[in-house]
Amino acid sequence: MGAIQRSFISSLDSGTKHEVLIRGWVFRLRVLAKTTFIIIKDCTGLVQCVGATHDLHDVHLHLDDAIEVNGSVRQESRAPGGIELDIKAIVTLNRCSHKLPFHSSSDIAEVGSDILLEYRPLTLRNDHIGNVFKTQAAILRYYREFLTANHFTEIVSSKIVSGGTEGGTNLFALKYFERVAYLAQSPQFYKEHGVAGFERVYETGHVYRAEPHATSRHLTEYYSLDLEMGFIDGPEDIIQLERELLTYIFDQMNRHCSHLLARHRKVPLPSMMNVPVWTFDECLERLRERAGRATLVDDLDPDAERRLCRMAYEEEGVPAVFVLGFPLSARPFYTHPRTETTAAGFDLLFAGLEITTGGQRLHHREDLERALLSRGISPNSFESHLRMFELGMPPHGGLAIGLERLTAQILGLANIREATLYPRDRYRLTP
Amino acid sequence: MGAIQRSFISSLDSGTKHEVLIRGWVFRLRVLAKTTFIIIKDCTGLVQCVGATHDLHDVHLHLDDAIEVNGSVRQESRAPGGIELDIKAIVTLNRCSHKLPFHSSSDIAEVGSDILLEYRPLTLRNDHIGNVFKTQAAILRYYREFLTANHFTEIVSSKIVSGGTEGGTNLFALKYFERVAYLAQSPQFYKEHGVAGFERVYETGHVYRAEPHATSRHLTEYYSLDLEMGFIDGPEDIIQLERELLTYIFDQMNRHCSHLLARHRKVPLPSMMNVPVWTFDECLERLRERAGRATLVDDLDPDAERRLCRMAYEEEGVPAVFVLGFPLSARPFYTHPRTETTAAGFDLLFAGLEITTGGQRLHHREDLERALLSRGISPNSFESHLRMFELGMPPHGGLAIGLERLTAQILGLANIREATLYPRDRYRLTP
Repeated sequence: MGAIQRSFISSLDSGTKHEVLIRGWVFRLRVLAKTTFIIIKDCTGLVQCVGATHDLHDVHLHLDDAIEVNGSVRQESRAPGGIELDIKAIVTLNRCSHKLPFHSSSDIAEVGSDILLEYRPLTLRNDHIGNVFKTQAAILRYYREFLTANHFTEIVSSKIVSGGTEGGTNLFALKYFERVAYLAQSPQFYKEHGVAGFERVYETGHVYRAEPHATSRHLTEYYSLDLEMGFIDGPEDIIQLERELLTYIFDQMNRHCSHLLARHRKVPLPSMMNVPVWTFDECLERLRERAGRATLVDDLDPDAERRLCRMAYEEEGVPAVFVLGFPLSARPFYTHPRTETTAAGFDLLFAGLEITTGGQRLHHREDLERALLSRGISPNSFESHLRMFELGMPPHGGLAIGLERLTAQILGLANIREATLYPRDRYRLTP
Repeated sequence: MGAIQRSFISSLDSGTKHEVLIRGWVFRLRVLAKTTFIIIKDCTGLVQCVGATHDLHDVHLHLDDAIEVNGSVRQESRAPGGIELDIKAIVTLNRCSHKLPFHSSSDIAEVGSDILLEYRPLTLRNDHIGNVFKTQAAILRYYREFLTANHFTEIVSSKIVSGGTEGGTNLFALKYFERVAYLAQSPQFYKEHGVAGFERVYETGHVYRAEPHATSRHLTEYYSLDLEMGFIDGPEDIIQLERELLTYIFDQMNRHCSHLLARHRKVPLPSMMNVPVWTFDECLERLRERAGRATLVDDLDPDAERRLCRMAYEEEGVPAVFVLGFPLSARPFYTHPRTETTAAGFDLLFAGLEITTGGQRLHHREDLERALLSRGISPNSFESHLRMFELGMPPHGGLAIGLERLTAQILGLANIREATLYPRDRYRLTP
């Protein structure tokens, strides 16, 4: 059979007159007395193949076997795609075990998360979960597309570092030859340096937090969509960029990925151009007055995030809100102030969950030194970083979006582990 | 000045009649008795600004200061881009130190590598090095573009793992709460699992090797362009895909990035469609007969790689060769055999350096067990991986391209550190 080149299923049409060779997995199988129907799945789609049961007896087909089929295309108006394949010959390339808890065509909505992880490849072949990760790949694609078109340069920064950027806690330590090194919590310093070089930079990569709490919204390793931009007037510039960025991503996904989204959400993704900006104080007041929540002080909690998104949806028609002006003391030392006590930093809450932290950063060396000293940290320990602020560092800021969180909120998943191929937390290091 | 929105330099043209506000760095500065000429650089380009020296006296401009300029566009046929800006006002946003070893417009070809790393942001603002990393960003872009168009799905796999994929050496150990974990040497297993799910997958991400030798071609952390594909006939399918992939990347770069390449190479990037495939034995014979190299046994060395690329250039007009069929014993356990003693694996040598390792992998569980046992490894320790081969794993293979190496060979850089923003080796953990 090797003489014919393999065709992708999506390339077949009723105009294909010659014999074809396709390869893929047995997605569905219906064996009647006289006729056998096999739906084959490859990376481009599905096609129904039809053969005489008698002729196929020796092949012993099972669901999810990897096979190749030699056959001819026939027009069939009732079939999806308008064609079927008449089988000439089938070869099994590799058999699937008969003892699996589910198959690629099974309804796996109710299968437990441990089983799903244990059989990760098979879950990907199943659209219910495969679509989650194809959605994630689409987010990455459109994220990069938008930024490239808007003069951002992609950078690749090191994840093995000599110290933390966000303070000393939650760092994973590493034996680095004769020394100790750490896994980067964030590319924060590197992307600020990138601004001093290229003005606008972005990075997509892993970040690491030795997070002792294995909640539904925390992982020890997650994928961060980072960007940083120079010559801004204030945090509003970054907020506006994120509005445009997410609107672009969502719009492209509505256009090109509606089949992926459809399994998990009923309505198209919204425009994010009208996401409101509420100050942190305004949020506290809303939560106090309209939800009786009076105990929040310097941060929001999951309940508050859900309520604020609901209010935004009711008022603006979009389940998202930028919260601007958190207490300065609760943000990292490099945060630019908005007022004496509040930060020019923001979070974006989307569909009930914080998916972005961003803000303007300090850009004068003296201000950074003062901020460090006020937190009892010696500027000496940040000398090599501080020196980068003597190279003509412009006013700048940026943001980081958690890819798993964004994926989960787009698809309405309850736990970010469902949007992580191989989740890592305190208790999970495999598969 | 805040009332006018900032314009990117590339958006200015002689039709811009109204007052504009631009922001960027002082790239060149020429102060004459009556007139001052400032070339400003932002993330989109350069423009010359002209003002009366007397009016600008109080601004105290220096090279690489971050400034904003208010002015009006004037047609000037002698200027690049056909326009100049008449300065109305200048504000300094942040000053650059006066004590720097070079500037963004300096000739830095001869500056030492330690100084360049220490001032990394300023080197990026300098085209000599900035173009290297813009070239790298372009490689990433076109790599992903080609694969997305060819039915590959991007995956994000974990870099914190419980064991190695390539054998136990060269692993970085990590304190993971109460356990020991390791940094992934390769996404090999995960991308094979990805094939069982999506048929065609790719990943761009860091890999880690506790490489004790700090040579010009080794780093402890590098960026790997990985792909893996199912339903192949043999390693030739992967070789052909890489020919097409690199030809696409090079072609796009010739079209859109010739200004980036021009500083480092005189001729456009070649088509890779005719890169020959030579067996390992044939390579040894060529090296013996034509270069007097008779001591090579189971691998090539840097001298051999350079000589083979030269031979390929003389014979085929392209300085690259796929070397197929290394001794099986020198490749990892999951390698598919080509003959009893040789591997269905290949390296791609390009411009004198190995930039890719690839090949077909075993896809039957029994074969993997046998391969492990023949190396004295118990299959039990790979049980969770081996089980993935019971899910209908198709015949498959893939490759990994070192991004830093590819960048270096495209631009003719002598050391891959020059193509690494923040290189890591045994002796270097900062910046």
